Amino acid sequence: MADSPNCDLKSLSPLQLFERVTEQGEKVRALKAGKAPKDEIDTAVRMLLSLKQSYKTTTGQDYQAGLPPKDLVSINNGTTKEEDEDFVDPWTVQTSNAKGVDYDKLIVRFGSSKIDTDLINRIERATGQKPHRFLRRGIFFSHRDMDQILDAYENKKSFYLYTGRGPSSQALHVGHLIPFIFTKWLQEVFDVPLVIQLTDDEKYLWKDLTTEKAYEYARENAKDIIACGFDVNKTFMFSDLDYLGTSTGFYKNIVKVQKHVTFNQVKGIFGFTDSDCIGKISFPAIQAAPSFSSSFPQIFNGKENIQCLIPCAIDQARKSYYLDPYFRMTRDVAPRIGQPKPALLHSVFFPALQGAQTKMSASDPNSSIFLTDTPKQIKTKINKHAFSGGRDTIEEHRKYGGNCDVDVSFMYLTFFLEDDDRLEQLKQAYTSGELLTGELKKVLIETLQPLIAAHQERRKQVTDEMVTQFMTPRKLAFEF
Amino acid sequence: MADSPNCDLKSLSPLQLFERVTEQGEKVRALKAGKAPKDEIDTAVRMLLSLKQSYKTTTGQDYQAGLPPKDLVSINNGTTKEEDEDFVDPWTVQTSNAKGVDYDKLIVRFGSSKIDTDLINRIERATGQKPHRFLRRGIFFSHRDMDQILDAYENKKSFYLYTGRGPSSQALHVGHLIPFIFTKWLQEVFDVPLVIQLTDDEKYLWKDLTTEKAYEYARENAKDIIACGFDVNKTFMFSDLDYLGTSTGFYKNIVKVQKHVTFNQVKGIFGFTDSDCIGKISFPAIQAAPSFSSSFPQIFNGKENIQCLIPCAIDQARKSYYLDPYFRMTRDVAPRIGQPKPALLHSVFFPALQGAQTKMSASDPNSSIFLTDTPKQIKTKINKHAFSGGRDTIEEHRKYGGNCDVDVSFMYLTFFLEDDDRLEQLKQAYTSGELLTGELKKVLIETLQPLIAAHQERRKQVTDEMVTQFMTPRKLAFEF
Repeated sequence: MADSPNCDLKSLSPLQLFERVTEQGEKVRALKAGKAPKDEIDTAVRMLLSLKQSYKTTTGQDYQAGLPPKDLVSINNGTTKEEDEDFVDPWTVQTSNAKGVDYDKLIVRFGSSKIDTDLINRIERATGQKPHRFLRRGIFFSHRDMDQILDAYENKKSFYLYTGRGPSSQALHVGHLIPFIFTKWLQEVFDVPLVIQLTDDEKYLWKDLTTEKAYEYARENAKDIIACGFDVNKTFMFSDLDYLGTSTGFYKNIVKVQKHVTFNQVKGIFGFTDSDCIGKISFPAIQAAPSFSSSFPQIFNGKENIQCLIPCAIDQARKSYYLDPYFRMTRDVAPRIGQPKPALLHSVFFPALQGAQTKMSASDPNSSIFLTDTPKQIKTKINKHAFSGGRDTIEEHRKYGGNCDVDVSFMYLTFFLEDDDRLEQLKQAYTSGELLTGELKKVLIETLQPLIAAHQERRKQVTDEMVTQFMTPRKLAFEF
Repeated sequence: MADSPNCDLKSLSPLQLFERVTEQGEKVRALKAGKAPKDEIDTAVRMLLSLKQSYKTTTGQDYQAGLPPKDLVSINNGTTKEEDEDFVDPWTVQTSNAKGVDYDKLIVRFGSSKIDTDLINRIERATGQKPHRFLRRGIFFSHRDMDQILDAYENKKSFYLYTGRGPSSQALHVGHLIPFIFTKWLQEVFDVPLVIQLTDDEKYLWKDLTTEKAYEYARENAKDIIACGFDVNKTFMFSDLDYLGTSTGFYKNIVKVQKHVTFNQVKGIFGFTDSDCIGKISFPAIQAAPSFSSSFPQIFNGKENIQCLIPCAIDQARKSYYLDPYFRMTRDVAPRIGQPKPALLHSVFFPALQGAQTKMSASDPNSSIFLTDTPKQIKTKINKHAFSGGRDTIEEHRKYGGNCDVDVSFMYLTFFLEDDDRLEQLKQAYTSGELLTGELKKVLIETLQPLIAAHQERRKQVTDEMVTQFMTPRKLAFEF
């Protein structure tokens, strides 16, 4: 953002424009405070006025400091707020549409890029591997700078992957696996190092927990992540509470980010207030710092400029801590601290069993399928709770067919059924009315039961020693 | 604060009352948000109203969130703001009085306790040593809980000392030595461990510096501190940028403090605004954390509850970063994270050569005597710049005498001349007019020249290896 404040303002979302005005305002204040040369201040002020004008043109309202435009019009239609506008910030995901969030709108609002067929084909050419079903089916739908990752990769320049989780006591549900399944695939086809952050400090700050308990949850959740099949020689997993005190590079990057982000900015992005504790306020820097390779001197041999790619899960149950804004902030800061911007891949929301409009809740065992569920529980939950796009009676269903766009069993199958042809057959059969809701649910049950049983089997094999091994700072099987 | 919100409100300063109201308000909000039982909320609300009433009675004004009462009346006279009221916050020290700040007023305002003859006698009895001249002459004039330190010490319970410095490129002046001279004496007479924090991260956040440069300054300043004669077997010195990434305990305490301090609080205490970076906003926790022994597991064998004593220097040139408010905040947080409150000792301001009303500035070489000054520079500076309490002519001086209360040469002698009798003789001779300004200045020159030459000699002996040794986390010569 800071590097090219003037280019194509029209392509920016209201929130992006808002952030640019805020940042430019701070720049003007800093120049004045630092008694900068008059012409420099004048230029900065002109830029500020022009940004404010763009903001007004786009949103129809005057810029107001500290009031981000989250309730304003979406840039792509220019009309006033629609009743069915999706609302997405790092803490809240709401949609009034049974199909779920409109992802094309979201791309426009985020100012990110669509993962289109060209990009997917390019990933296939670069890796020589069939694209993952999450790519084939638009489950990872949006990106920032993935093309740059591929440019570099095609020129034999490596990168690393970064993802994470806020550890909790609750069992993970199948939706939690999406980023890890995809990250594992990316790691395998690109053959690159991976770092996984467990934000136990975040959980300590936000919840009524001791640091010891939060760390215990981190190690417990690590077992489920390891059970996804990560290679210990290529993967470093860390708890913040633990790693911050054992890394010579991590804190230095944290304090660098903290120097370049104001309270105004985190207030605008995350909605913090003056009553929030200073730990929450400064936490975004701790989520940002692993985007810079110098946070891991043991892996990257102290090299500062290894590019980072973040599969950025959008997790409804956790109110989306891992959503894009953290890393949009990180990308703004990166050039100002002499670091490359991390690239991003965004996944769609994983729907609750009750439908895309309802919110998944870890405290409601019926809101999703959990990794600890028995085959019987899986069957009962799907049969009883999975929102159906089928008709009220068999007769009507046969006549008019079911609606795959709102049917949660079908949605879950797009996530977990590997066979494209089978999925297409199911879709046609369900839409035509040939396939009944109960039959579709049966396919999902038979898909998930063995997947979850296999996960449980692998998790049983994960020992405390293995967790310690993954969490020990060390060189990985790559040369830098 | 949180442990006994109701006791003796009348003894509290307006700022303390303000902080209690703010904190109680947050408590009420938290209870409501957490859907606490109605009677619990009611009790908390009643307490809030009673605190607001006390605040109004004391200050004559209604409590306003976010507006601390720094410009309000001083509690000890109940009148409106006086013209000559001293103004002290962590960043600013102002006095319109040539004698300097009124320390008795300051004690009332801080809500601290005076270091009186009884306490000094008790220190003498406990240590079996003659009290340091800084105690005998009221240079360390105020304390919090020093009596508790002595209670414990008399019962063979040990404690540790904590002091620090924000490292800068500038040479230290003699005033910078005050806390270190006194800390060294305390360490010797009590025979306790000492930790010295070098806040290079703070300097990075506040100044236009790289982290590398800030760390370099920390190591450079460490040499001057070591030259004060600290025992490497009893002293651990650390740079934040370095130690945070090598300590298993430090970050955990930082995040604990950060969870228990809100932006409202640091705004009230330190005057931060929404435009400040999140690094500055969360920094107070980094200065607080060394007050807890678990930040140094290598020294205290992981023990959590070793009491800490902080000789708290008030440093005009640095706008008083080490002033009391950081540690008042720390003391508020301590019981809430299950740690003992650190005890404090406060020193008076060290005056600039030009007098107690002017501000020392590291960029003005004539504002003080620097540790790098040659004997000739010392002589010239004192003769040319030291503010004199003498009369305009020799005749008038002989007739009316000089004024020791405003004479900077005499003030400096109270800091650096060890011999009490000699100091008293000088005072009488100067006050009676028998001793001329030039003669008094000569005594100061002859006192400081050998002190500084000896410091320079010791500093030359300090090698980089010695700095590394002091900064290596390790066990000290004490059992815990």
